[in-house]
Amino acid sequence: MRAVVYPGSFDPLTNGHLDVIERAARLFDRVIVAVAPNSEKHPLFTTEERCKLVVGATRRLRNVEVRAFDGLLVDYVRGCGAQAVIRGLRAVSDFEFEFQMALMNRKLDEHVETIFMMPKDTYTFLSSRLVKEIARLGGDVSTFVPRNVGGALLKKVRPVPRAGRR
Amino acid sequence: MRAVVYPGSFDPLTNGHLDVIERAARLFDRVIVAVAPNSEKHPLFTTEERCKLVVGATRRLRNVEVRAFDGLLVDYVRGCGAQAVIRGLRAVSDFEFEFQMALMNRKLDEHVETIFMMPKDTYTFLSSRLVKEIARLGGDVSTFVPRNVGGALLKKVRPVPRAGRR
Amino acid sequence: MRAVVYPGSFDPLTNGHLDVIERAARLFDRVIVAVAPNSEKHPLFTTEERCKLVVGATRRLRNVEVRAFDGLLVDYVRGCGAQAVIRGLRAVSDFEFEFQMALMNRKLDEHVETIFMMPKDTYTFLSSRLVKEIARLGGDVSTFVPRNVGGALLKKVRPVPRAGRR
Amino acid sequence: MRAVVYPGSFDPLTNGHLDVIERAARLFDRVIVAVAPNSEKHPLFTTEERCKLVVGATRRLRNVEVRAFDGLLVDYVRGCGAQAVIRGLRAVSDFEFEFQMALMNRKLDEHVETIFMMPKDTYTFLSSRLVKEIARLGGDVSTFVPRNVGGALLKKVRPVPRAGRR
Amino acid sequence: MRAVVYPGSFDPLTNGHLDVIERAARLFDRVIVAVAPNSEKHPLFTTEERCKLVVGATRRLRNVEVRAFDGLLVDYVRGCGAQAVIRGLRAVSDFEFEFQMALMNRKLDEHVETIFMMPKDTYTFLSSRLVKEIARLGGDVSTFVPRNVGGALLKKVRPVPRAGRR
Amino acid sequence: MRAVVYPGSFDPLTNGHLDVIERAARLFDRVIVAVAPNSEKHPLFTTEERCKLVVGATRRLRNVEVRAFDGLLVDYVRGCGAQAVIRGLRAVSDFEFEFQMALMNRKLDEHVETIFMMPKDTYTFLSSRLVKEIARLGGDVSTFVPRNVGGALLKKVRPVPRAGRR
Repeated sequence: MRAVVYPGSFDPLTNGHLDVIERAARLFDRVIVAVAPNSEKHPLFTTEERCKLVVGATRRLRNVEVRAFDGLLVDYVRGCGAQAVIRGLRAVSDFEFEFQMALMNRKLDEHVETIFMMPKDTYTFLSSRLVKEIARLGGDVSTFVPRNVGGALLKKVRPVPRAGRR
Repeated sequence: MRAVVYPGSFDPLTNGHLDVIERAARLFDRVIVAVAPNSEKHPLFTTEERCKLVVGATRRLRNVEVRAFDGLLVDYVRGCGAQAVIRGLRAVSDFEFEFQMALMNRKLDEHVETIFMMPKDTYTFLSSRLVKEIARLGGDVSTFVPRNVGGALLKKVRPVPRAGRR
Repeated sequence: MRAVVYPGSFDPLTNGHLDVIERAARLFDRVIVAVAPNSEKHPLFTTEERCKLVVGATRRLRNVEVRAFDGLLVDYVRGCGAQAVIRGLRAVSDFEFEFQMALMNRKLDEHVETIFMMPKDTYTFLSSRLVKEIARLGGDVSTFVPRNVGGALLKKVRPVPRAGRR
Repeated sequence: MRAVVYPGSFDPLTNGHLDVIERAARLFDRVIVAVAPNSEKHPLFTTEERCKLVVGATRRLRNVEVRAFDGLLVDYVRGCGAQAVIRGLRAVSDFEFEFQMALMNRKLDEHVETIFMMPKDTYTFLSSRLVKEIARLGGDVSTFVPRNVGGALLKKVRPVPRAGRR
Repeated sequence: MRAVVYPGSFDPLTNGHLDVIERAARLFDRVIVAVAPNSEKHPLFTTEERCKLVVGATRRLRNVEVRAFDGLLVDYVRGCGAQAVIRGLRAVSDFEFEFQMALMNRKLDEHVETIFMMPKDTYTFLSSRLVKEIARLGGDVSTFVPRNVGGALLKKVRPVPRAGRR
Repeated sequence: MRAVVYPGSFDPLTNGHLDVIERAARLFDRVIVAVAPNSEKHPLFTTEERCKLVVGATRRLRNVEVRAFDGLLVDYVRGCGAQAVIRGLRAVSDFEFEFQMALMNRKLDEHVETIFMMPKDTYTFLSSRLVKEIARLGGDVSTFVPRNVGGALLKKVRPVPRAGRR
């Protein structure tokens, strides 16, 4: 049995993340979505909220589990009995950062492999940061995030009413 | 008649920005420089100051207007009756970020096109951030920004006198 | 009136090229598709054939003209009375090559501007080279090229019958 | 059971390729190394020779098979009953080309996934092309390729004797 | 006599930095490691502490000096009687930022050259930021930093005890 | 005394190459321009011609020598008694290729260092390939290459007379 860990801050989960989860769930026996605390970046959603949103969006995927994690990723992967870390790659800048992380993790534990998957091309532009910014400015994010995330975002950001702007 | 919007935070306007504005003004009937609030990054100049500096530097360009804007860029472009957004591209890192923004904007409104222009090669290195840093350290920025911006920068940053440093 | 030149070898025209032509045709008064001889690369289609394929695919676009060209691009743009060159950008590697060309052209004639447009994201992967390779291997290219190009490709490449390969 | 295909021209197999094969063999039940004809590039070794070299170097890996293939990769993957294509990523330029291929393959058959793995960092610089060039110039390639490949390279390139060069 | 300045925040010095210092010390007569205040980024170590750590790690290199510096880099280089700035390049993102800085410095003083060196490939992934993050999470950084830096890091970050995490 | 080797095919020398040579000649005691045979690419000029053009353009630089070389670069550098290889970096694509070469050379001989210098920003776009192409198309290359190279290019390419083309 092959288990993989898909770590991230998921603040919040986008359709790009979900697409990677679905692809991984078809290739591996068990996919553990590991929600990191992201304490540095002042997340919009708490770790608990972010976990719930991922759980809500992945309910129909039988071999996907969602867990909060902190500490070193390589320790966590080992502790889960997983063989590899999954990461999505969208662009060159992703590539460089991800490679740096993957090499560092390999130095910390050479038995933890990192494998990269490519989200659907129409999600190339998507990032949690952009989605939050658009929601704050009153834009429609319903095609960028799962339905349950869209509802949660609207409640969080309480955008300025748009009536007067047009 | 073709109108384009050139958005940015312009904190402050550099000669690289001005070069893009001049190029756009030769290709389109109307160029609207849209000064964004940039609330996240603690701007050095207020939105009003930044608008004034752009106005001062573009006075001789008849078809250029300067306006503050907030909200979603695509809404603003539509509201102006413009057909496209203009962005300057200097380097690969620009390219990736700009493409992400342009794709996101296209998803939000498929009728808003983004077109990219290339500033003069001697301005490749220029960024508002570097200009501010150099001014703060007492460096001479007169070849990097329009004359009116240079004066305003000096007043703002009040650099430590350089006499004792050499 | 603003005229732009969209140069390329178009061997053959893909849906990505066509998408850029359509976008340019909405922003400028006149779009001249300039088909380069590409003598170095042993084109699959002759210049004349390539021109005809572009003409066939752009018939409904009133302000688009198709012409063969050789010589220096900047001379050609000047001779056409155009103000700018249009280029599509898909990826970082495009970006670098295109910038090099655009800077060189600017040195050769500073009045010829280059502006970059972004094809639809689902065409990011498309290139004439890949399309020809897939056609040669018997793959279905009907979603990658305009209908008239697809027919011409099939006749040209006469792929090995696929029956025996599975 | 999960099977993956690792395609390439392997002209010849390097230690970088072998490292990717070993990593894939730990993560998947079956790894099929698919040696492509590479007819365009005038390979140094024939397809048959290249297959034999891979077989020789992977003998101890029980779940690795080596096969020549031609035609469309997605057809081949389907025909093998595999779920995914494995590719090694070393650098940004790899990344762009590989993404273009992977997106194209996904358009041709959306059920064929591409996953990317990272070879050992000390193999980042390795390419078959460089190895061949060094061997031709009389350099020592014994740390860049498996032992059986090194022997075969020496026989093929018969480098100019080095004594007279200094 | 040729002197070069190697500037950075060194918060803290990594084995990658040390490797660049050693390479520069073999090529130039005098290498001045210039420790910048880095006031913006809330350094973990004070400038004084960072200088001491570099001094401790470079003691055996006779032609290396360590100094704190602030102000404009080009003024500092001139003041030292140095001819060039040394920078390490690890990745594409480094490259772009470093080029921007080097071009800016060349505009500020055309007599100050910037030259780039490549650290050992096994240090490609290393950055002060990652090292600090790993130390904070209780990971072992002894292979990433010189011995004296490792000790200082442990005292600073006082990681959460790991016993309960597994 | 520090000697460096600046290798390349120089087919032909451009002002960008010359700029790197001048910068290196200010930083090192001796600069050896090593003209490689470039047998694969069908050079426009013979190795002998290329050497003569470099000699002609660098006559006033006392510490610059020009030599043809073949074989392994690291052997050549050692044989010259040089400590390092100099390479010019213009763009991200340069960076990747150059790093690959530099790492390979370091594996072949760890005592041969590679250092990178940045040509003047106005030469970013320059390449021997583009210069030859422009000359062939009848463009003016006098600002892109040294005077002696310009003359030699004109004789070589004998461009089609331009009168009839408009």
